[in-house]
Amino acid sequence: MEKEPLLMLPGPVPMPERVRMAMVRQAINHRGAEFGSIYADCVRVLKEIFRTKNELFVISGSGTAGMEAAVANFGRGREIACLVNGKFGERMYKIAQRYGTAHEIASEWGTPLDIASLEDRLTAGAEMVTLVHNETSAGILNPAEIVGKLARKHDALFVMDGITSIGGDEVRADAWGADVVVTGSQKCLAAPAGLSAVSVSERAWERISPERPYYLDLASYRKSAGAKVMETPYTPAVPLFLALREACLIIEEEGLAPRIARHRRNSEAVRMAAKAWGLDLLPELDRDHAYSNTVTAVKLPSGIQDSEFRGTIKKLGIEIAGGQDHLKGRIFRIGTMGATGAPEILATLAAVQHALRIHGYSPREDGVSAACGVLG
Amino acid sequence: MEKEPLLMLPGPVPMPERVRMAMVRQAINHRGAEFGSIYADCVRVLKEIFRTKNELFVISGSGTAGMEAAVANFGRGREIACLVNGKFGERMYKIAQRYGTAHEIASEWGTPLDIASLEDRLTAGAEMVTLVHNETSAGILNPAEIVGKLARKHDALFVMDGITSIGGDEVRADAWGADVVVTGSQKCLAAPAGLSAVSVSERAWERISPERPYYLDLASYRKSAGAKVMETPYTPAVPLFLALREACLIIEEEGLAPRIARHRRNSEAVRMAAKAWGLDLLPELDRDHAYSNTVTAVKLPSGIQDSEFRGTIKKLGIEIAGGQDHLKGRIFRIGTMGATGAPEILATLAAVQHALRIHGYSPREDGVSAACGVLG
Repeated sequence: MEKEPLLMLPGPVPMPERVRMAMVRQAINHRGAEFGSIYADCVRVLKEIFRTKNELFVISGSGTAGMEAAVANFGRGREIACLVNGKFGERMYKIAQRYGTAHEIASEWGTPLDIASLEDRLTAGAEMVTLVHNETSAGILNPAEIVGKLARKHDALFVMDGITSIGGDEVRADAWGADVVVTGSQKCLAAPAGLSAVSVSERAWERISPERPYYLDLASYRKSAGAKVMETPYTPAVPLFLALREACLIIEEEGLAPRIARHRRNSEAVRMAAKAWGLDLLPELDRDHAYSNTVTAVKLPSGIQDSEFRGTIKKLGIEIAGGQDHLKGRIFRIGTMGATGAPEILATLAAVQHALRIHGYSPREDGVSAACGVLG
Repeated sequence: MEKEPLLMLPGPVPMPERVRMAMVRQAINHRGAEFGSIYADCVRVLKEIFRTKNELFVISGSGTAGMEAAVANFGRGREIACLVNGKFGERMYKIAQRYGTAHEIASEWGTPLDIASLEDRLTAGAEMVTLVHNETSAGILNPAEIVGKLARKHDALFVMDGITSIGGDEVRADAWGADVVVTGSQKCLAAPAGLSAVSVSERAWERISPERPYYLDLASYRKSAGAKVMETPYTPAVPLFLALREACLIIEEEGLAPRIARHRRNSEAVRMAAKAWGLDLLPELDRDHAYSNTVTAVKLPSGIQDSEFRGTIKKLGIEIAGGQDHLKGRIFRIGTMGATGAPEILATLAAVQHALRIHGYSPREDGVSAACGVLG
């Protein structure tokens, strides 16, 4: 097998060797004490990263399963206000449509959320608000604290998708009043894909729906986690728990604050390179919104074909992401999540700069040098 | 770390080294051609093992997720007849209650299904029948072909849980008229826990519910599997797919018929040992039911405490299962699934025989010798 490509995507991301190696163990009994302590380790560290004292569960299913669990357990039959400024906001809206009366509050992808319309919807009786904290499709960081305050003021539940911010950017679930918070394993946690984690506040438990799905029934997760030996209600994906535990221990060793600083530095380096090249970032910000610190969305210069451009980069052993849906061919996205540092960022920027040149765009300045200034 | 125990449970089961090692790879892009071919390999082999020409999908979620997918996509709002003679039959009934009007057709655990009552329920208009083919809680193999014929005669959909038979015992999904068939990765396939596979017949597609869950929406799985590059609708648990592919290739190499013969020989050896010890098996059979070939449920002699008995066996490095729910303390169960052969069976029987003796039961004859006669 040739060397695997370096994945600079907004997930999945490169995993530390320790995380990958944790999976090779022989099967263990998932009803035994050892699995209980593996699960407990994951929960302990994840609660630190979520900044929550609420209960937290790990589901054997990807981030979308976690999002659905949040809506299906607490939103059934309710009025749900869904803030949307990108693909994952749309996905949350689609999920909400399957369970409640969903109201989309849409902005152009990568532009500020319409907080005024949210307030109107809350005044009109919305009982749940959904927000994607870090919208990877557009590289924008949404104002979770503001949304949380509004939801609380109107006594609505606040469901936050922190799938691509948690572990890479600051999240304060409890301080922001986020009642149900979701993350995925293969993003800033740098673990393999296939697990999601969900925290649940007391306010949410008080409003749990009597009619719930089975596999994603969070009341079952609660009951099993509280058993004498901590466990999951249904068979867990044991190798993924082993890997997630290792990834959590690595985060503890690095420290959350230095880890967030590293993610910020990495994304700042990418933004500096784009600026040096004379390229625009996709997001249009106001003072409440910010550029994502885990993925940067850059407008592709006109005349460059996305597939050829990324093909050139791929030939250099690096995968970056294109745009999704209507942004296909209009932007490229560089993920700076997980176990990435200066070497990965520099290699990626060098490859992008090369691809820009050979596909006919002349960068204004040397973006790689600009990035070194941030990273060094 | 000390040596891991030998798991002779009805799942999870020991995995071949090749399967475990397949998981250590660096992350790959799950929207790329390589993942597509990994998924395609799994589907190709699983269809052979299911004996189906129907479409088949792999879900990142354990067997219970597959069971729920079957009921939630095709049973919503319908009259569902649930055959129950063990814990997993009960689970299917609980799932059915969340989606349709569920009718439990219950027999004592480990006793024959009540086929006459099923026929009555079908005559009364049941539109779906659920069956657990191999009931691990009781060690009984249920008559899937008979149930399938009845369901077809009354134009009902037949949902079959083949989680602990597929890959270890004969299953003929199409010949039996099984419309939706489910298996799990960590049983007879000898892959890690965390994936389920679901096959869907044309008859089932014609009756798919317009109101479906999101993560388990099989129409989304169908659409994504049919894309130019075969993929899953949501992020898959990539390491588990890598392991499942390897497990499938191993099954192809062994051959399905020899593999089934091996499972039958192994379970026959356990049954012969129990007989030699003078112990009764739990199941009460009629001519349509059979002993399971993947797990054997044996009645614990009176006076022996289950936890002490299995504790003695565990000290010898081997884990067998006890009874579940009301059978706790009344039976012990030995799994013979996956990558197990004569050495594992013999070690297990030797340990069980020893435990019987030191906890005060005198085996009538040498069960280990009896097993050698079958295995040799």
